[in-house]
Amino acid sequence: MARIVMKFGGTSMAGTERIRVVAARVKREVDAGHEVAVVVSAMAGDTDRLVNFCREAAPLHDPKEYDVVVAAGEQITSGLLAITLQAMGVRARSWLGWQLPIRTSDAHSSARIEDIDTSGLIAAMSSGEVAVIPGFQGMTADDRVTTLGRGGSDTSAVAVAAAVKADRCDIYTDVDGVYTTDPRIVPRARKLAKVTYEEMLELASVGAKVLQTRSVGLAMKENVRIQVLSSFDDRDSADLPGTMIVGDDELGVEDMERQLITGIAHDKNEAKVTLTRVPDKPGAVASIFSPLAEASINVDMIIQNISHGTGSTDVTFTVPGAELARSLDLLGKAKEAIGYESLVHDTKVAKISVVGVGMRSHAGVASTMFSALAQRGINIQAITTSEIKVSVLIDEDETELAVRVLHTAYGLDAEVEAA
Amino acid sequence: MARIVMKFGGTSMAGTERIRVVAARVKREVDAGHEVAVVVSAMAGDTDRLVNFCREAAPLHDPKEYDVVVAAGEQITSGLLAITLQAMGVRARSWLGWQLPIRTSDAHSSARIEDIDTSGLIAAMSSGEVAVIPGFQGMTADDRVTTLGRGGSDTSAVAVAAAVKADRCDIYTDVDGVYTTDPRIVPRARKLAKVTYEEMLELASVGAKVLQTRSVGLAMKENVRIQVLSSFDDRDSADLPGTMIVGDDELGVEDMERQLITGIAHDKNEAKVTLTRVPDKPGAVASIFSPLAEASINVDMIIQNISHGTGSTDVTFTVPGAELARSLDLLGKAKEAIGYESLVHDTKVAKISVVGVGMRSHAGVASTMFSALAQRGINIQAITTSEIKVSVLIDEDETELAVRVLHTAYGLDAEVEAA
Repeated sequence: MARIVMKFGGTSMAGTERIRVVAARVKREVDAGHEVAVVVSAMAGDTDRLVNFCREAAPLHDPKEYDVVVAAGEQITSGLLAITLQAMGVRARSWLGWQLPIRTSDAHSSARIEDIDTSGLIAAMSSGEVAVIPGFQGMTADDRVTTLGRGGSDTSAVAVAAAVKADRCDIYTDVDGVYTTDPRIVPRARKLAKVTYEEMLELASVGAKVLQTRSVGLAMKENVRIQVLSSFDDRDSADLPGTMIVGDDELGVEDMERQLITGIAHDKNEAKVTLTRVPDKPGAVASIFSPLAEASINVDMIIQNISHGTGSTDVTFTVPGAELARSLDLLGKAKEAIGYESLVHDTKVAKISVVGVGMRSHAGVASTMFSALAQRGINIQAITTSEIKVSVLIDEDETELAVRVLHTAYGLDAEVEAA
Repeated sequence: MARIVMKFGGTSMAGTERIRVVAARVKREVDAGHEVAVVVSAMAGDTDRLVNFCREAAPLHDPKEYDVVVAAGEQITSGLLAITLQAMGVRARSWLGWQLPIRTSDAHSSARIEDIDTSGLIAAMSSGEVAVIPGFQGMTADDRVTTLGRGGSDTSAVAVAAAVKADRCDIYTDVDGVYTTDPRIVPRARKLAKVTYEEMLELASVGAKVLQTRSVGLAMKENVRIQVLSSFDDRDSADLPGTMIVGDDELGVEDMERQLITGIAHDKNEAKVTLTRVPDKPGAVASIFSPLAEASINVDMIIQNISHGTGSTDVTFTVPGAELARSLDLLGKAKEAIGYESLVHDTKVAKISVVGVGMRSHAGVASTMFSALAQRGINIQAITTSEIKVSVLIDEDETELAVRVLHTAYGLDAEVEAA
């Protein structure tokens, strides 16, 4: 017997027929003797509908009231799943964010979970009753409704799993696991049996959209074992070949044989900004990045070219494409303070990353990457590295080619037998 | 300066454009210096959508979870109205049923309001902030979501008005007041400036669908002045010629001149049931109506014909059309216990009622009715009376004719100047 948190996304909850499929899957875990809590998203499209209502009501709307409106979507599906489970003879009840309660910060529309009162929840689960919990929502200290930001239901599920000390948090999605890269680009991409939290964080933050990044960070901190599974596969969860997301320490002997590189991610949502002829003196770089940091704009890759011998230098960096306009505006206003000559930008770029905990103990990962790309004539515009990741910025048009080349270069293609 | 509760129905809340019209009307009251609470329904059609989800999930569903699902509709509109008011520069916030809280009985899906905590509400309203309250919803003593039954938002509005001791409860609807009869049947029907609670109760319960009966009963008990207004008329509420619903004691001198009869209502949703040759002995009638009462079937008009001289009698009564099948089933099972000969029924009947507090002090109201109908050859199948109402049961096909004949007979046609 285990204690399991199951999470179902909007596609799985889209309509009463699909909710019946979800309920059948929950029933199977209950019949197997497990204690179960289920975290649900709103029906696919419903959150968009509610968000649009808020935008129509006022483009700049009070996030407190926005939260009241959009939290309704998950309230609806949690009640419907409880009804459907009961109709199948499974004891169940919904627990809304304010009923548990799930306490969050007061950062409305992007709140952070601070505490979950599990007293009622654990008592109910222990008695064999399935707890159905709307994801994405919580309540502030002064009893206002909050939401966690888009995709927040993953975070809700991990937080509930941590709070009830669940053995496992099963995230059912419309993909059947985490792949070495996007299968639409590389048909020979392989599904991974295990990835570590850190690998998943790097893969997710650079574009693999299986799980919300925040939920993985929380799982790592709270040591929650996540399993990514397909909600469209009808087999028992024990037989479902999903992907387990675990700590480094859980990589067993068989995992030692795993590939150096776990996966390859790409992200076309970056924009490149270059400031030419920035004075090459102390404080110049700070004057560029301080205004961006103050505006909460996340700067990623930074390159400072060598001095022209003229006392000035070019500085290039990337920002999220959605923040480009704001970044250019801020930098334009700071032109005199920074003292650059011209401000140029490029949105036709892509960031390609190779990720793997294996590279910690292996040299040569980066050079394999550079050689493979060079052989196909792909020009590298910028490079960043972390302990378990090497990222390069290239022309957007070469994204698919680069991903395929690297997938082969690191021996990830499916013919190669791996962990 | 007054304290006003405004209530808007689903048609008024159907979409962000209409909500803007509602907000503009609320703003006008705020600008006039009034303290305002607004009670809102779900968008027209949204409650039906949510109810259908529940039915699809399971025909017999847990009313506790049904309430969780359907309460979401009003949560959405209350947040949207708050956003819209803020965009117009009006301070506003939503107060959900569990936030105030509105405490109700635990009769899920048809709960009764027991108590409204007004501390936060009155403080906010006094500070000039509009309180937006979702109608139809509340919370049990053990913090489960409840709803009040269809049309419950009227009741919410009156309950809030009573709790905050409002000067007035303005109910905005898609009609502009209470008429002497259905204007679709009698084009010369007149809008009434005032009706009493009791008259409104009789008019509502026999088919005038302006206000939920429960809300009128509550208003009478709590002495809340209700004003029925059109949400599609753009004038100031002070200038809007709606209908005031008040106590008998508020009928002034000018109202003394009002018509003997206030209005004429009709109801086609009754069904007539007759049991023939019921033994004419003590306890026979009880054996008919006890099983119906136990099944909560509301029996209305009852006629026991004179004995046939054979020791038996025919008993006729009406039940709501929706309860006919269940009634026939119960009576069929009780055939031996009751000892009747045959069970016949007729759904092609209509109940026509003339209503008015004036008839308390005037004789001849009923005979005017009977004569007028007889002159047009309309046969009366059954009669019931109360202190302020006379109802007759007639052939459904003669409904419109009967209403028109009576409207004229009691001098209600618009040419006649009245209160």
